[in-house]
Amino acid sequence: MHTDGIKKILGLVRDRRLSAEEALERLKVLPYEDIGFATIDHHRHIRQGMPEVILADGKTKEQVTEITKKMLMNKGDILITRATEEVFKGIKAIDKRARYNRLGRTIVINVKRRGNGKGNILLVTAGTADIPFAEEARETALLFGSNVTSLYDVGVAGLHRILDRKEQILSARVIIVVAGMDGVLPSVIGGLVDKPVIAVPTSRGYGASFGGLAALLTMLNSCAAGVAVVNIDNGFGAASLAHKINMLGEGE
Amino acid sequence: MHTDGIKKILGLVRDRRLSAEEALERLKVLPYEDIGFATIDHHRHIRQGMPEVILADGKTKEQVTEITKKMLMNKGDILITRATEEVFKGIKAIDKRARYNRLGRTIVINVKRRGNGKGNILLVTAGTADIPFAEEARETALLFGSNVTSLYDVGVAGLHRILDRKEQILSARVIIVVAGMDGVLPSVIGGLVDKPVIAVPTSRGYGASFGGLAALLTMLNSCAAGVAVVNIDNGFGAASLAHKINMLGEGE
Amino acid sequence: MHTDGIKKILGLVRDRRLSAEEALERLKVLPYEDIGFATIDHHRHIRQGMPEVILADGKTKEQVTEITKKMLMNKGDILITRATEEVFKGIKAIDKRARYNRLGRTIVINVKRRGNGKGNILLVTAGTADIPFAEEARETALLFGSNVTSLYDVGVAGLHRILDRKEQILSARVIIVVAGMDGVLPSVIGGLVDKPVIAVPTSRGYGASFGGLAALLTMLNSCAAGVAVVNIDNGFGAASLAHKINMLGEGE
Amino acid sequence: MHTDGIKKILGLVRDRRLSAEEALERLKVLPYEDIGFATIDHHRHIRQGMPEVILADGKTKEQVTEITKKMLMNKGDILITRATEEVFKGIKAIDKRARYNRLGRTIVINVKRRGNGKGNILLVTAGTADIPFAEEARETALLFGSNVTSLYDVGVAGLHRILDRKEQILSARVIIVVAGMDGVLPSVIGGLVDKPVIAVPTSRGYGASFGGLAALLTMLNSCAAGVAVVNIDNGFGAASLAHKINMLGEGE
Amino acid sequence: MHTDGIKKILGLVRDRRLSAEEALERLKVLPYEDIGFATIDHHRHIRQGMPEVILADGKTKEQVTEITKKMLMNKGDILITRATEEVFKGIKAIDKRARYNRLGRTIVINVKRRGNGKGNILLVTAGTADIPFAEEARETALLFGSNVTSLYDVGVAGLHRILDRKEQILSARVIIVVAGMDGVLPSVIGGLVDKPVIAVPTSRGYGASFGGLAALLTMLNSCAAGVAVVNIDNGFGAASLAHKINMLGEGE
Amino acid sequence: MHTDGIKKILGLVRDRRLSAEEALERLKVLPYEDIGFATIDHHRHIRQGMPEVILADGKTKEQVTEITKKMLMNKGDILITRATEEVFKGIKAIDKRARYNRLGRTIVINVKRRGNGKGNILLVTAGTADIPFAEEARETALLFGSNVTSLYDVGVAGLHRILDRKEQILSARVIIVVAGMDGVLPSVIGGLVDKPVIAVPTSRGYGASFGGLAALLTMLNSCAAGVAVVNIDNGFGAASLAHKINMLGEGE
Amino acid sequence: MHTDGIKKILGLVRDRRLSAEEALERLKVLPYEDIGFATIDHHRHIRQGMPEVILADGKTKEQVTEITKKMLMNKGDILITRATEEVFKGIKAIDKRARYNRLGRTIVINVKRRGNGKGNILLVTAGTADIPFAEEARETALLFGSNVTSLYDVGVAGLHRILDRKEQILSARVIIVVAGMDGVLPSVIGGLVDKPVIAVPTSRGYGASFGGLAALLTMLNSCAAGVAVVNIDNGFGAASLAHKINMLGEGE
Amino acid sequence: MHTDGIKKILGLVRDRRLSAEEALERLKVLPYEDIGFATIDHHRHIRQGMPEVILADGKTKEQVTEITKKMLMNKGDILITRATEEVFKGIKAIDKRARYNRLGRTIVINVKRRGNGKGNILLVTAGTADIPFAEEARETALLFGSNVTSLYDVGVAGLHRILDRKEQILSARVIIVVAGMDGVLPSVIGGLVDKPVIAVPTSRGYGASFGGLAALLTMLNSCAAGVAVVNIDNGFGAASLAHKINMLGEGE
Repeated sequence: MHTDGIKKILGLVRDRRLSAEEALERLKVLPYEDIGFATIDHHRHIRQGMPEVILADGKTKEQVTEITKKMLMNKGDILITRATEEVFKGIKAIDKRARYNRLGRTIVINVKRRGNGKGNILLVTAGTADIPFAEEARETALLFGSNVTSLYDVGVAGLHRILDRKEQILSARVIIVVAGMDGVLPSVIGGLVDKPVIAVPTSRGYGASFGGLAALLTMLNSCAAGVAVVNIDNGFGAASLAHKINMLGEGE
Repeated sequence: MHTDGIKKILGLVRDRRLSAEEALERLKVLPYEDIGFATIDHHRHIRQGMPEVILADGKTKEQVTEITKKMLMNKGDILITRATEEVFKGIKAIDKRARYNRLGRTIVINVKRRGNGKGNILLVTAGTADIPFAEEARETALLFGSNVTSLYDVGVAGLHRILDRKEQILSARVIIVVAGMDGVLPSVIGGLVDKPVIAVPTSRGYGASFGGLAALLTMLNSCAAGVAVVNIDNGFGAASLAHKINMLGEGE
Repeated sequence: MHTDGIKKILGLVRDRRLSAEEALERLKVLPYEDIGFATIDHHRHIRQGMPEVILADGKTKEQVTEITKKMLMNKGDILITRATEEVFKGIKAIDKRARYNRLGRTIVINVKRRGNGKGNILLVTAGTADIPFAEEARETALLFGSNVTSLYDVGVAGLHRILDRKEQILSARVIIVVAGMDGVLPSVIGGLVDKPVIAVPTSRGYGASFGGLAALLTMLNSCAAGVAVVNIDNGFGAASLAHKINMLGEGE
Repeated sequence: MHTDGIKKILGLVRDRRLSAEEALERLKVLPYEDIGFATIDHHRHIRQGMPEVILADGKTKEQVTEITKKMLMNKGDILITRATEEVFKGIKAIDKRARYNRLGRTIVINVKRRGNGKGNILLVTAGTADIPFAEEARETALLFGSNVTSLYDVGVAGLHRILDRKEQILSARVIIVVAGMDGVLPSVIGGLVDKPVIAVPTSRGYGASFGGLAALLTMLNSCAAGVAVVNIDNGFGAASLAHKINMLGEGE
Repeated sequence: MHTDGIKKILGLVRDRRLSAEEALERLKVLPYEDIGFATIDHHRHIRQGMPEVILADGKTKEQVTEITKKMLMNKGDILITRATEEVFKGIKAIDKRARYNRLGRTIVINVKRRGNGKGNILLVTAGTADIPFAEEARETALLFGSNVTSLYDVGVAGLHRILDRKEQILSARVIIVVAGMDGVLPSVIGGLVDKPVIAVPTSRGYGASFGGLAALLTMLNSCAAGVAVVNIDNGFGAASLAHKINMLGEGE
Repeated sequence: MHTDGIKKILGLVRDRRLSAEEALERLKVLPYEDIGFATIDHHRHIRQGMPEVILADGKTKEQVTEITKKMLMNKGDILITRATEEVFKGIKAIDKRARYNRLGRTIVINVKRRGNGKGNILLVTAGTADIPFAEEARETALLFGSNVTSLYDVGVAGLHRILDRKEQILSARVIIVVAGMDGVLPSVIGGLVDKPVIAVPTSRGYGASFGGLAALLTMLNSCAAGVAVVNIDNGFGAASLAHKINMLGEGE
Repeated sequence: MHTDGIKKILGLVRDRRLSAEEALERLKVLPYEDIGFATIDHHRHIRQGMPEVILADGKTKEQVTEITKKMLMNKGDILITRATEEVFKGIKAIDKRARYNRLGRTIVINVKRRGNGKGNILLVTAGTADIPFAEEARETALLFGSNVTSLYDVGVAGLHRILDRKEQILSARVIIVVAGMDGVLPSVIGGLVDKPVIAVPTSRGYGASFGGLAALLTMLNSCAAGVAVVNIDNGFGAASLAHKINMLGEGE
Repeated sequence: MHTDGIKKILGLVRDRRLSAEEALERLKVLPYEDIGFATIDHHRHIRQGMPEVILADGKTKEQVTEITKKMLMNKGDILITRATEEVFKGIKAIDKRARYNRLGRTIVINVKRRGNGKGNILLVTAGTADIPFAEEARETALLFGSNVTSLYDVGVAGLHRILDRKEQILSARVIIVVAGMDGVLPSVIGGLVDKPVIAVPTSRGYGASFGGLAALLTMLNSCAAGVAVVNIDNGFGAASLAHKINMLGEGE
């Protein structure tokens, strides 16, 4: 970091080779980052070598590979989301440790070996078609360091299935519910279970689902208190938030 | 009816005062209705003196009163929907029998005395704010001749309440579910109960409910089979359809 | 079913090997389904071996095949909707009885031989392009056990065609009208015919049809009473509801 | 007009008091209008003293009155649309000839006395609530010089009513159909009658009519050829176009 | 036609082999079309052998070919719109006279030889990308029997180009303006030229053109009187209406 | 609770006055709630006398008062949201302890005296106009038992203000960011601060803010990880979720 | 400013009463603003006493008055937009210099007397109804220090009017075009005139103008290069940008 | 140009071979462009040989090549936007100087050699996926004659990066900010930097970004004054406007 630069200025002041006024002027033009308070409590994360994340969608294969190479120099874990098989080949070629989750379309490069995950995030999907986004969430949360359990293809008609898993639900600190079509499941779970619920609407459906808009609106209008929503298909975002919430109780 | 006109033409043909060709020409210009098959099986309704319905919304008080006066000559029952207190005063002034349902904003003039209602329609609302549209449905169904039972303010959190009324549900031939906000209730009931469900989205809610659009989309995307949807706030339409379905099993 | 488990507990109570308090505790943790009242009047269906349904859209070929295999163990009929030719090949490989409707994109595995269908559902389409969704509805209703007659490519300009089929219409208990573009047909039929009408908007059209939105809105705003709407292209949903309505008059 | 200015320049050239180059320079800076070809065939209208039109909506009462005063100097007829009773009082105060159509919210100042109207425009409305926009159209077409006949509150259920008026329809050169809610009527009339149809969607309706959007989309997607659409509630625009079409056959 | 059936009934009445009452009953069940007044003034068209039109979009190649075959028996002209090259091959195989307009994606089978077209329709496009829809309109209008002139790629920046064609504009009875992106051209032309203008919004554009929605809304809100709008990309519809208007002045 | 009923049945079995089969039948018709596992971990809340909440919007003054009366019998705290001054008068009349927050439009009846709040929720608003929804959130969180600090009218231009409050931010467990117009603030805060962020879009703004839709979409698309969104203007929902998250770290 | 605090730290370092390390730590926790580089080139503005702006919409009269009072202490000019007459009374009461523009709904408190405005901004409106937003822009630009000329009610039909004002246009550095309904004017002016054009869509219109959405989309899709758009009705924003652009050529 | 034609008429007048009246008539039918004032201050551009621009999107390869050939005769620079590699091959074949920017999908034919660019436009993108549209802007601005510097992939999390480039920002006359997803960056930069900001929303993103709509709305609602918006993905439009603004300060 550039704290050296500041210390140097301070040293000059101490040695009276620079007046306070001159030092002040120099400090004013220092780059923002150097002062070091910009991202307030990100430091802890940086110290712990948190994963870096690349959204592959909208980037060329070459761009993703190039960015990954640079990130590997930081020796932290790397998560690539929305990655095609094609992108995976490119990444595999530069780092053998890369692992691809075909359903979730995520690539993970696990550089640091962490111990066991902490707390518990429960992943629930309404249907089979919603699983890819849950898998994206799973990979994200695991790499960040949370424990994850899952309950796929529950649906409203299969409501009893979630009620059957009493223990599983009670042990979760936060629940991610992934649902397309009518997006009803988070409302129902939010009405039955007293946990923070993060709802992920998915683009799965047809007709008046309008690419996930119907599910999104359902979730935003949920009558169950304690439900918040992320972008359509955004398993990554849901897991990022869930991990932060999960860690709260862990004294991290 | 105008069958007299046709009979008269036929009489002229029989009496050879009109050639077949001339009769054909005259028949061609006869008004559509005269032929009498236009509305196929509406006749039964007409014979039975079914209620006539006026949507007051968008009409002036004077227009509603005028139309009502004309309809009273047909000596059938009359239902006025979306009626303000102001409109009611106007109607009351021309017919003392008029009765106003303040919540449902309906005026009913019960001219014919029918016996007991038939079958059973179950009315369910998600919240207290949805009741006006259920009341519109209730008045409609009752006037049409169906029995109606109701279960208001159920919500998803109060799901057990509907499960508590097993008998009530089992006795219904068709269920109308009225819900605003997230519009989740029809999906849930449709998943639990094996009856035709007519869903009425309501404009009650705020923000991203967009005047009932959210509830409407939820209901259209319902994963539960056997759910159909009518227009936002359209208690009348739901009851009309429910009555037709209810009568099917009655041999009417 | 698991009623055995409950009976066993009750047997232990009877034999005084378990106190009432202990039995109560055990009952509380029993899975929801075991109690058996969850889906109220679904039992009849289950007893009758009603078909199970898979929406192939959004699932991989492997997932559909896997789910089908499991369902075949239940020895009930199976309906797969939105199935590609590719999916059909997979299903055909595991069960020779599978039959594919190319237009309707449905796969049917007819395990149980039922007798003649009951009642009558009339299927109407506005245009040739709407036929696939009507075919989906037809396959659904037939497998569920309803009789189906159809009248394709009627349009508004061809209004007389439906009026020509007086007998066909009078014999139907419920009418499904499938229409894209302006979605006008259900309003027109609902105005002429006094039957429950289920309207299916389709995504067929271009420009301001916005993927079926125009037809959907037309149908929701229908001035004809007794019309309800299902999701765009949802032939399956329409048939599910129509079957339930059709059965009402049959004393099932 | 300013052709005098151009003639003057040309006179100077002829008298060799101005070189061709200088004349060219002067012509280049002449105002656009002076050249006189800008609005191509508007001249006929101007010569005939066609009415001038003010859209009162969005203007203050003072602004409308001020504009009217200026227009009265041109000694042509004046049409004010979307005028409140308040605006009418202001106009009445400056010209006693002003006449107000309360339903259509139009003010007409008939300065020039024209003979009988020409041709025939047929005005049709689906419901009573659509009449105001038809009245706006009627006043517009009459002032422009077309004959107008009307058929209000036809609806789809009352389809026979329009079929009853065979003579009326056959004598019309163009038909304006005004409809809110599902906006189905223009499609139906366009399918039955072989005349140019101008469809006016109205904002009347509720719920998923979305302020006339549903009717608008229905009309745009009309399967009947020969239907074009104007803005929601735009009776004036429909009548302007209908008048132009009506005049075509009149050799104006 | 089936007037024979009616005449036969009338003959029986005349011969007193059928009572008036019985005849009335028989007439009631006659198919709608037989009476012959349903489509009022369509007869002229039918007598003149007007073209029949097939929208190929949404139909399989087989369906289009099959429908064409049947229509060829009527010995009228045939127009197929939205036809792919693939569909054209199929049609060419059954009728050598078929002609394909690649830009406009129309197939024309010119069975009847008509004389010169009548009147004049002016076709204007804003850009090169809008030409396909103008070509669809051209083929339609020509086959229907109108004269067509065109002015492509005018744009607003090229406004002078249309002003340059004074003669061409003055000779047109109706103008079709085809424009994507901002859809401004019809407003501008409608403000300059005193002719009926039919505006065709196109789906050409990107970003906030939202598939033609922007152009559509611009046109609907046009401040120029005398502009009506058809569906996005609907060259056929615009030409159908333009032809009807064009014929009005021709005494057809 | 109704466990007594179950125990009674079990007692009968034990005493052999009821066979296991009969007992099973009786258990099947027992109301859902009786079994007691429906709402899984809601019990803790119920035991702790958590507040009950009434959304006044869409209910009549009489309905709100009636519901409040019933709830007062449960001797728990009561929160009424979206309450008008008028409603407050009604509530004040039945319970003197009622307190009204004019900005936040909330009524609180504080029946139980709790000790100090726990943890910390930071409330941030972008503008002055967003404060009402933050106040709704504050009242909710305080009544639920969380500590709340706030930072109003921060905006993006005033970004430094939030950076100035380093201590305040570091002490918060979760941050609620309330913003209308462009809804940018949650993205910015989410990018600077490593806490769970709950974003509340507000309906404040004009033009293309479309009643909060713009802010909502901005927040859903937030590039900052760890941001979730609730309904437009839904301060209550945000606080409910924030409280649950805040409690996680408290060992509640 | 707080540079005193920094100087004090530097003084302690110079006097060796604080080590460089300790000084660095202290600097890190200093408030952001103190460093003084946050808003980069805002300083010039601050030095010049640029006006402060309050959007009155969504704030209570009390809030606006309170904020104004605080701002008056800074002795800079103040602009209040979207102010009701009611708000103006409140402001007038605290500062007699306040001046209200009723059409533009702006309040201006002119504290500093500036000399003549600089450069030139041309304000154009399509209609009379668009004037309020142009007036908002005018007041803003004038207070900021730009010259403003205007040309109201031009329309597309009145296109020649703008062409008539050649001198006025040529002297402008930037043009603001304000238009509702079809929003065509900026495209037309952008096609004719080679100046930066800032387009302001307005909410004036009806039906499919959807509160300004139609005009907004038209402008965004403008085929004329050099047109950018601000929010619907946002005269203030347009003037802010126009002023910045206008000043560029002035060497400010 | 055609000024020759006018001079010839004037010559005839001067030589008295044509009366003033006749000359006036001839002048009236002269093509618009000939008079030469149509595009007011476009002349400067034309004199300077400004580039001509072709939007390749929606045109066939043949059309683009044909238009390019014609333009090459004008001996001015040519810019082709939205060009595929396929189109580039066609252009390369007719002019070897053609250069393709693969990311920006632009083809440039640099016919005239200009000196150094003037002023400075700063290009900023939020993410890597937004670069293509920035590259389109870069090519446009460079060809038009502006200097361009760029700062790609800044994001909100990387806010410090733009603050680090103080010199770069201070030297820019206008800033183009290109951003997809939440579109937050222009608001943030507009809040920090006192320059005209042109915001380009991009279609990059997923789910509720709705093809750039979310970013577009964010930018339109920007609370930062001095931000205007162009169409989604419209790098060309942004650069055209930026160039005009940039030139203002150059005394061009």
